[in-house]
Amino acid sequence: MTTRLRATVSAAALVLAVATAAASVPGSARADEGMWTFDAFPAERMRAAHGWAPDQAWLNRVQSSAVRLSSGCSASFVSSQGLVLTNWHCVSDCIAELSSAQANLSQTGFIARAAADEKTCPGVEGEVLTSITDVTEQVRGAIAAVPAAEASRATARIAAEIEAEACKDLDPEKFQCSVVPLFRGGQYKVYTYRQYKDMRLVFAPETAVGFFGGDPDNFNFPRFALDAAFLRAYEDGRPVTPATHLPWRRDAVAEGDIVLVAGNPGSTQRLLTVDQLAFLRDWLLPTRQLVRSELRGRVVQYREIGADQLRETEDLLFGIENSFKAQYGQMRALQDPQFFAIKQREEAALRAAVAANPALQAEIGDPWADVSAAVAAQQELFFQHEFLEARAGSVSQLFGVARQIVRVAEEAAKPAAERLPGYSDAAIERIKGQLMVPRQIFPDQERMGLELWLSKAREYVGVDNPAITRLLGRESPEDLARRLASGTTLADHAVRQALLEGGKAAVDASTDPLIAFVRATDPDARAIALQWSSRVQGPISSASQRLAQARFAVYGSSAYPDATFTLRLSYGTVKGWTFNGNTVPWFTRIGGKYDRATGAFPFAVAPSWAAAAERIDRSVVFNIVSDNDIIGGNSGSPLIDREGRVVGAVFDGNIHSLGGDFAFDGRVNRTVTVTTAAIGEALGSVYGFERLQSELGLTEAR
Amino acid sequence: MTTRLRATVSAAALVLAVATAAASVPGSARADEGMWTFDAFPAERMRAAHGWAPDQAWLNRVQSSAVRLSSGCSASFVSSQGLVLTNWHCVSDCIAELSSAQANLSQTGFIARAAADEKTCPGVEGEVLTSITDVTEQVRGAIAAVPAAEASRATARIAAEIEAEACKDLDPEKFQCSVVPLFRGGQYKVYTYRQYKDMRLVFAPETAVGFFGGDPDNFNFPRFALDAAFLRAYEDGRPVTPATHLPWRRDAVAEGDIVLVAGNPGSTQRLLTVDQLAFLRDWLLPTRQLVRSELRGRVVQYREIGADQLRETEDLLFGIENSFKAQYGQMRALQDPQFFAIKQREEAALRAAVAANPALQAEIGDPWADVSAAVAAQQELFFQHEFLEARAGSVSQLFGVARQIVRVAEEAAKPAAERLPGYSDAAIERIKGQLMVPRQIFPDQERMGLELWLSKAREYVGVDNPAITRLLGRESPEDLARRLASGTTLADHAVRQALLEGGKAAVDASTDPLIAFVRATDPDARAIALQWSSRVQGPISSASQRLAQARFAVYGSSAYPDATFTLRLSYGTVKGWTFNGNTVPWFTRIGGKYDRATGAFPFAVAPSWAAAAERIDRSVVFNIVSDNDIIGGNSGSPLIDREGRVVGAVFDGNIHSLGGDFAFDGRVNRTVTVTTAAIGEALGSVYGFERLQSELGLTEAR
Repeated sequence: MTTRLRATVSAAALVLAVATAAASVPGSARADEGMWTFDAFPAERMRAAHGWAPDQAWLNRVQSSAVRLSSGCSASFVSSQGLVLTNWHCVSDCIAELSSAQANLSQTGFIARAAADEKTCPGVEGEVLTSITDVTEQVRGAIAAVPAAEASRATARIAAEIEAEACKDLDPEKFQCSVVPLFRGGQYKVYTYRQYKDMRLVFAPETAVGFFGGDPDNFNFPRFALDAAFLRAYEDGRPVTPATHLPWRRDAVAEGDIVLVAGNPGSTQRLLTVDQLAFLRDWLLPTRQLVRSELRGRVVQYREIGADQLRETEDLLFGIENSFKAQYGQMRALQDPQFFAIKQREEAALRAAVAANPALQAEIGDPWADVSAAVAAQQELFFQHEFLEARAGSVSQLFGVARQIVRVAEEAAKPAAERLPGYSDAAIERIKGQLMVPRQIFPDQERMGLELWLSKAREYVGVDNPAITRLLGRESPEDLARRLASGTTLADHAVRQALLEGGKAAVDASTDPLIAFVRATDPDARAIALQWSSRVQGPISSASQRLAQARFAVYGSSAYPDATFTLRLSYGTVKGWTFNGNTVPWFTRIGGKYDRATGAFPFAVAPSWAAAAERIDRSVVFNIVSDNDIIGGNSGSPLIDREGRVVGAVFDGNIHSLGGDFAFDGRVNRTVTVTTAAIGEALGSVYGFERLQSELGLTEAR
Repeated sequence: MTTRLRATVSAAALVLAVATAAASVPGSARADEGMWTFDAFPAERMRAAHGWAPDQAWLNRVQSSAVRLSSGCSASFVSSQGLVLTNWHCVSDCIAELSSAQANLSQTGFIARAAADEKTCPGVEGEVLTSITDVTEQVRGAIAAVPAAEASRATARIAAEIEAEACKDLDPEKFQCSVVPLFRGGQYKVYTYRQYKDMRLVFAPETAVGFFGGDPDNFNFPRFALDAAFLRAYEDGRPVTPATHLPWRRDAVAEGDIVLVAGNPGSTQRLLTVDQLAFLRDWLLPTRQLVRSELRGRVVQYREIGADQLRETEDLLFGIENSFKAQYGQMRALQDPQFFAIKQREEAALRAAVAANPALQAEIGDPWADVSAAVAAQQELFFQHEFLEARAGSVSQLFGVARQIVRVAEEAAKPAAERLPGYSDAAIERIKGQLMVPRQIFPDQERMGLELWLSKAREYVGVDNPAITRLLGRESPEDLARRLASGTTLADHAVRQALLEGGKAAVDASTDPLIAFVRATDPDARAIALQWSSRVQGPISSASQRLAQARFAVYGSSAYPDATFTLRLSYGTVKGWTFNGNTVPWFTRIGGKYDRATGAFPFAVAPSWAAAAERIDRSVVFNIVSDNDIIGGNSGSPLIDREGRVVGAVFDGNIHSLGGDFAFDGRVNRTVTVTTAAIGEALGSVYGFERLQSELGLTEAR
């Protein structure tokens, strides 16, 4: 149900070497820093630094070739027949969905030898950004007179109206419109997307190949992973013909080459105030990491049982470990006193500049103090919000299904102006669609998720909190989880369909134990969500907008906004780095993988690569690093050369990118990419996948 | 193998309400703060505050009645026949050792109806402090000329010499001598103990009774736990007659009554510098909590398998959850900016006072800067030290056995001056004795511990660290753990005995996979231990001694030392507390337990208590709170009235004692005790344990 945002910056080699990033003051970004929107790309700045910058035609072509995946990843069209390049780890959930006890695609990989073999990835959609329209004034006007406590809900309401208006003449099966807040409310823009709702798997390597090095190598470099996969966009049962695509570059880039990343960085926190960062450091991150570690332990132990359990939890465990490393890195960065001091100095500088400008000061008031007050409320409400609302259900899919069914029934019955944010008519239709996506349900995971959630809710919110008393009744978390997981029939889509069609009356009459449980306990969750909106989100939204105003006034408008999982362009060059006297080269070769192999997972060579050991060209450049500014969500992004050719698929960040969520240090922060050269070599020498080689132009003479 | 230090302060009701403790400047402790040694009890100060203080006869009698348990707990003699009162949770490991699939004592409780039924708790020893001798000058003299890097090892060597000298005329079967560093090296004293090596279980309630409320109620009050148990000290197969014992008080104390706690607080960090506290906050505590959470998840999931797994892991899980809550509370306290600021102000005040005293300044130099440098080294070495040395093996018992066998063989072959600290002749004899204590070994736990350890070592130390390469070779953590756990024969005491007797030659020739593994990898562990000693422990030991000197010079000698799991006395009164406008009363009654019961663990009423529901006196005061200053290790301590009678067994701290590791806030920090009145009522009305009632004088007319 939840869109997983894959962390490109996905690991933390845990002997910590967080560079004390020389974070620049926002607005004065130095060379190669920045995740720029396509409507405000700083071509002049790039040209000054690199002697070259893309022109508008280049930008247009790349924008219309870039694909956002609903699985939380990035991708790009790489052929005129709708072929899409992304990462292996961006389709690992699809691989799991398409696998069964009889066909374990994680072990075998997936190769659609014939066009007819291409298989739909359930729930995966591709989106291409077609237009950006500024609606800042319209949003501002609608919320100007609204008190801070209402700001968040009022913004959601006007955004829903703007989205409906922007999309009203477009086919809802093919387009969607989203209001995107940029600079944390400093700007609002409508992004219109062309959607592709049938994305089929064409090629994915074995896990041993796509994830060679596994969790230990995650966030490390040198690396030797073929973290690449291909999808194809279909419509009406036929491959689509995209407006543009990126030509495939057969040879590898060289050190010092200019490269750009076009993709969707998920989320950065570079514009947060120091109080907000301290909240992340001391409350949110530690809590999530502790609960996640316990979940990780449960899953690891569960995997002892046998092969079915291994297969069923493979993607779940990958996601847990990936998030753990990313957030571990974030914690370490924020716990580094020198790193934190940089953020404190940035804030002090902006506050001083505002104080020196009485007119500005009068206009914006003291947004820092307002944020502090909201953060105090955030601490007070945090555990309740986290365990009753934000993370309720843990990894139970069916809890999410039940909650959405109950809420959709509740909200759809109300006038638009009175609904919870996120339940506009269009949103409800999207939710209903998602609820009917076929997904494998594993009863043991359902029970495990519910039990973990219920026991942690009791632990953190407190055994005597009235909401916890209502949640558990006279049952233990273990007994309640078992009763709900074994009794619910929501895995059956017909049951869901009937509840969605029957609306509130059907939900009220349902005897499904999970529906009954959510019906009884959701009022507490909604109450805390409302408090959170009024005391935390609203005031922070209001203050953040004034902080953006302050930054624009002091530093001008030449900055880039925090990441929002929308299309950005980052420029840089191919280069290694030096830290603590150690220099890490910019590339690895295919042969290095064979040298690193130990025979034991995750360092085992897959049978296909063992068989190809003599015929593969070991000199081909495999993985490379460049100083592009990326973050989780950029996974699968095309790395693009000056000529607009795709030269690789971005799949990770190095150890020093750990703190990139909060500040970018161009000296050591690196993007990790698997080259098109290596992908092409593998398709030929390992997999003999001629259909795809031909489509990519790899079989033509050079 | 490891002595578990039970946290009395053992939980964190996780909706945090850490009082921003008004921590006093060390040396100016206010009323009721302090864990005082018996040779420096501040009778004047107590009399000034309370109008009464114990005289020397009172102190002597209580000292010789107080018992320290090698399980990491406190206790007291309560009859002339060697009967010892402690907590249920202090014998829970003994209960587990004495249980089997046929007799699950956790479910049934244990009542030795006849004297012959009393059962030895394997490995549990009782110790009574018989004398304290100051040896500060002797230690100082021995290390005066030693460089800081050597200070830690030199101190260990002189301490071993002093201990041997102090004990040389005493029966080693009945006495042991320990040099105790107080004030972090400000003083050194030899503590001589009378030892009792055969402690037998007399009575323990069911887990549902002793641990009513379980992990959720841990650290909460009001409470309703009969966290009490009885042991009996034996020698030569007969109950011992202790020199003194504490008379049993049948009725409950009242609000405002003076009460004292005589016990062994395990460890406090109140005298650490700010840099050391930041290290705990940012490195040690988060790392241990994350790894512990993963272990917790593994254990919880393992328990799904069945009844045997539930029984085998019950005490393990209790220990994990107990430590988690205690350390969670410590983290929250240190993450509270107001709390941390108090420690910063304390330090600034002492530094200013030293700076104002040039002679003192010249004498001690800048110990704060020396600590900072050592803490920097501590960060650098932390993960290696943690995973290769300090926490190697995780919960695998047999890894600890193998390591000790290998190290004892290695060290015993060397002259005393060249050995690792902790391997004096006397220490080696103790280790050999511990290695032969019969303990249940559960192969699944062995595998789980080894696998967790190996995978976390790789994760935190780094996959490419040479020590990790040597640790894992070409195996995965999973495969290696399985091979070691399934192949080792060290569960067999005859095998251990042969290796211990055969010495280095036998160890070198052993083909046991775990011995071979330790033999190959222990050099890396020893190397990091040596670095740790030279770069961390030595410099900190040297600086801490000078910090103690500064405190004595500035604040005088009327302070109390940090806790060291040695006998202390804390005074206070029975009282509730008020926080955030809510007042918590000082007591609960037995009837409240029935009201709180839900029917589901840990809030289920045991069958014995259900059967007694009508005959038990519900008005008896059950659990109480008082403002004594305690910490983990005090579990089982007698709570004592002015007349020297035991009035209860201390078993927990309240939520506000979370930060007590670092500072005491007498306004809200409370000790939680189960009353002798309730224990007596239960022995009679629930368990009908007349033999014990009679021994305690409960069957006599009043």
